[in-house]
Amino acid sequence: MENKKNSFSEWYNEIIEIAELSDKRYSIKGMNVWLPSGLRMMQSMDSIVRQELDSLEFREVSFPLLISREQLEVEFEHFKGFEDQLFWVTRGGKEPLEVDLALRPTSEVAMYPMFSLWVRTHADLPLKTYQIVNTFRYETKHTRPFIRVREIHFIEAHTAHATFEDAEKELEEYDSVFRKLCGKILVPVMRHRRPDWDKFPGAKYSIAYDAVMPGGRTLQIGTIHQYGDNFARTYNIEYTDENGERQYASQTTYGMSERLLASVIGIHGDDTGLIVPPAIAPVQVVIVAIPPVSQEMSSFVSEIMDVLKSKGYRVKYDDRDNYTPGYKYNDWEMRGIPLRIEIGKREASGRFLTVAYRTGGKMKIDIGDLGAAISGEIRRVEEEIYARAEGFQKNSVKFENDVEGIISFDGVSRAYWCGSKECVDRIEENSNKNCLGTVEDDGSEGPCVVCGKPGRLSSFSRTY
Amino acid sequence: MENKKNSFSEWYNEIIEIAELSDKRYSIKGMNVWLPSGLRMMQSMDSIVRQELDSLEFREVSFPLLISREQLEVEFEHFKGFEDQLFWVTRGGKEPLEVDLALRPTSEVAMYPMFSLWVRTHADLPLKTYQIVNTFRYETKHTRPFIRVREIHFIEAHTAHATFEDAEKELEEYDSVFRKLCGKILVPVMRHRRPDWDKFPGAKYSIAYDAVMPGGRTLQIGTIHQYGDNFARTYNIEYTDENGERQYASQTTYGMSERLLASVIGIHGDDTGLIVPPAIAPVQVVIVAIPPVSQEMSSFVSEIMDVLKSKGYRVKYDDRDNYTPGYKYNDWEMRGIPLRIEIGKREASGRFLTVAYRTGGKMKIDIGDLGAAISGEIRRVEEEIYARAEGFQKNSVKFENDVEGIISFDGVSRAYWCGSKECVDRIEENSNKNCLGTVEDDGSEGPCVVCGKPGRLSSFSRTY
Repeated sequence: MENKKNSFSEWYNEIIEIAELSDKRYSIKGMNVWLPSGLRMMQSMDSIVRQELDSLEFREVSFPLLISREQLEVEFEHFKGFEDQLFWVTRGGKEPLEVDLALRPTSEVAMYPMFSLWVRTHADLPLKTYQIVNTFRYETKHTRPFIRVREIHFIEAHTAHATFEDAEKELEEYDSVFRKLCGKILVPVMRHRRPDWDKFPGAKYSIAYDAVMPGGRTLQIGTIHQYGDNFARTYNIEYTDENGERQYASQTTYGMSERLLASVIGIHGDDTGLIVPPAIAPVQVVIVAIPPVSQEMSSFVSEIMDVLKSKGYRVKYDDRDNYTPGYKYNDWEMRGIPLRIEIGKREASGRFLTVAYRTGGKMKIDIGDLGAAISGEIRRVEEEIYARAEGFQKNSVKFENDVEGIISFDGVSRAYWCGSKECVDRIEENSNKNCLGTVEDDGSEGPCVVCGKPGRLSSFSRTY
Repeated sequence: MENKKNSFSEWYNEIIEIAELSDKRYSIKGMNVWLPSGLRMMQSMDSIVRQELDSLEFREVSFPLLISREQLEVEFEHFKGFEDQLFWVTRGGKEPLEVDLALRPTSEVAMYPMFSLWVRTHADLPLKTYQIVNTFRYETKHTRPFIRVREIHFIEAHTAHATFEDAEKELEEYDSVFRKLCGKILVPVMRHRRPDWDKFPGAKYSIAYDAVMPGGRTLQIGTIHQYGDNFARTYNIEYTDENGERQYASQTTYGMSERLLASVIGIHGDDTGLIVPPAIAPVQVVIVAIPPVSQEMSSFVSEIMDVLKSKGYRVKYDDRDNYTPGYKYNDWEMRGIPLRIEIGKREASGRFLTVAYRTGGKMKIDIGDLGAAISGEIRRVEEEIYARAEGFQKNSVKFENDVEGIISFDGVSRAYWCGSKECVDRIEENSNKNCLGTVEDDGSEGPCVVCGKPGRLSSFSRTY
């Protein structure tokens, strides 16, 4: 297949096709078909987030797809931000609709009028909800599976709080959820506070999680927005406080999309194919028997399956008889399955397994030890995947003392920046890099790389 | 609350609101907000079906929401059947789209052009897929939560087979999935082969699963369609057979919707509120402690929670301190939670539990026996729920020898029918009943209740 390092874009398209993640031959541009492996991986990520949010007492809801024009236009800044990207339903049956209906580009405007009904007094707060739905953007740019599509699988949390301070604290919960997810999908991320002109329409400020993709472009895979009372004032989300006074709620939101899957594919894969983190692998362990498959081998395979299933692992026995073991090895490696167990005559009679790691290397395990050893083996693959991803990220980020350095480096450039648009323009005019904003987890300060005024550590990269 | 028997419609609307299943105050008619309890129940049903279909080696996919007009119009009969119910997207951003795009009313037309790419030779067959998505119908009739809505939560399976015989066999698999689901949600169903004029647009024939709701109206909660090669010919789903000849595939589909939830609510509930089958209850066991709650009682509750959780049950301790036990009992009964555990001073010191069944009655269980007993207790509630539902259904179905009997009976009338439209018209003109078609699981024959010619056992009822 394509070489990942030299032609990432071609590699990415090829692996999505041959590993059967998505089919982009559907008749509408930027709307692709989720194939079983891609869908299962996404669903596993949904489950991880669902579990984390549930444990934080978020409540899952599901709002309608359509939003009326009247409702959308109430928050003008928000509407303006999406106006060029809305799909509009204008007819029902053969008749024009009385009011045009937009396919949700995001759900603030669908949800918040209901929030104003749900929130009455301080006892109703905090209100913490989330939903997992598809959102729609009429993209005119070049589309790319999981990265820029017109129908987007989306996880969005929305909250309302009594005070701005409570809303600020909520952002820490979001951060913990995101870090737990990234710990499972083994993707290292950077956290940036976006420049003011790049914040979400309607937000007080926006924090984004960016992952570095091969080639050095960054991919925004999650965002957190602090709304304060911006939307609450527009949509009348008010409550009666302890003193009987009416107050506006403060709100936050949190969003993640199928770009998570793009980061998993892009960051972990190699020239052999996908490498799928065990937590989201549709199959975590595949078993291949080397023909001729004796009765003894068959029962040994069953025994192994039973042990692994009883421990809750997703295991598959590839018993296709029209393929050689070599073909099967390649096939499952291409699909990125973390562990492969090879069973030959020797293994069955000796009652041991040969385990091959997708990240390289093999070892032998006694069947008696399998139950105790399996979680360690899985963990070993996870550690290897994460170490590689982290190493790649480290090599892709470089501190620069001058604009020329930012322009000439392919990856993410770090530099001090004063916060002004003019200084960013200087960089953007001379490179195809954007300012990702200030680095959230590093408060260090220094002279702006452009104007020399006091600045904060910031990132610049080409972006998807 | 409302009396279920005398004013079912009002009871139904009220319970949906107070049990927080759905909020219909959203600004678009027939598009409601799924609230956490309703959503969890639906998701549990999705999971049951997903598990059954996966075990039959169906593969889950997810197709785009939008279907181009060009693609829709290829199958004219199908298009005609939905034409009046389509929502049309005609604009993207500020520009008119080149081709109008419909929100899927169902997914044949989205899927089958892709099937024609996926199916090449007999080795690609059978192709068995399903998806769980929302579908859209521009309903002009009166809408009602979960029963007649404009955005419909939908489970749809679609297959392609080498021969018509294989396709016919597939229908048995569908039937087994449906029966397993109904076994879990404890809803008895009748299976009818719909009259030819009432089959799905594009189908050779349609089989429907009908449940009897309070008041005697039937609700179609599942359908199976035999397409033969109707769509395959239109969308070129062809394969090369063993002899190298090109053949059209034969196809089937299977659909279920949120109406499943409507049947659960309507059939099982009583004047106290919902009664939720344990398999889909968001909370299966609720624990209420009677104040004052001592340290001993608290640790006893934790011990009970641990036992139940370790067995995989969804259990909740209602530790709200601003409500009385009586209020909590009523609240959880209204929400239909199958089992309630009451813990007082006596229980904690005696190390036993008082268990109250949502279906009535109480019993005491020693904490040492809880782990072994709990599945039996759950089963006991299930049996009671099913027995009531079955009893209700039996009383709602009556055999009739004359048209007058059919007209005067409120429930489902069974009668022999010759198959002609004219005879059905006679019945439909004189009552508000429709012909559900012939009874699939009863081949008995007799003289048509209208014309006296040879007929088959058929059903007539008012329908939703």
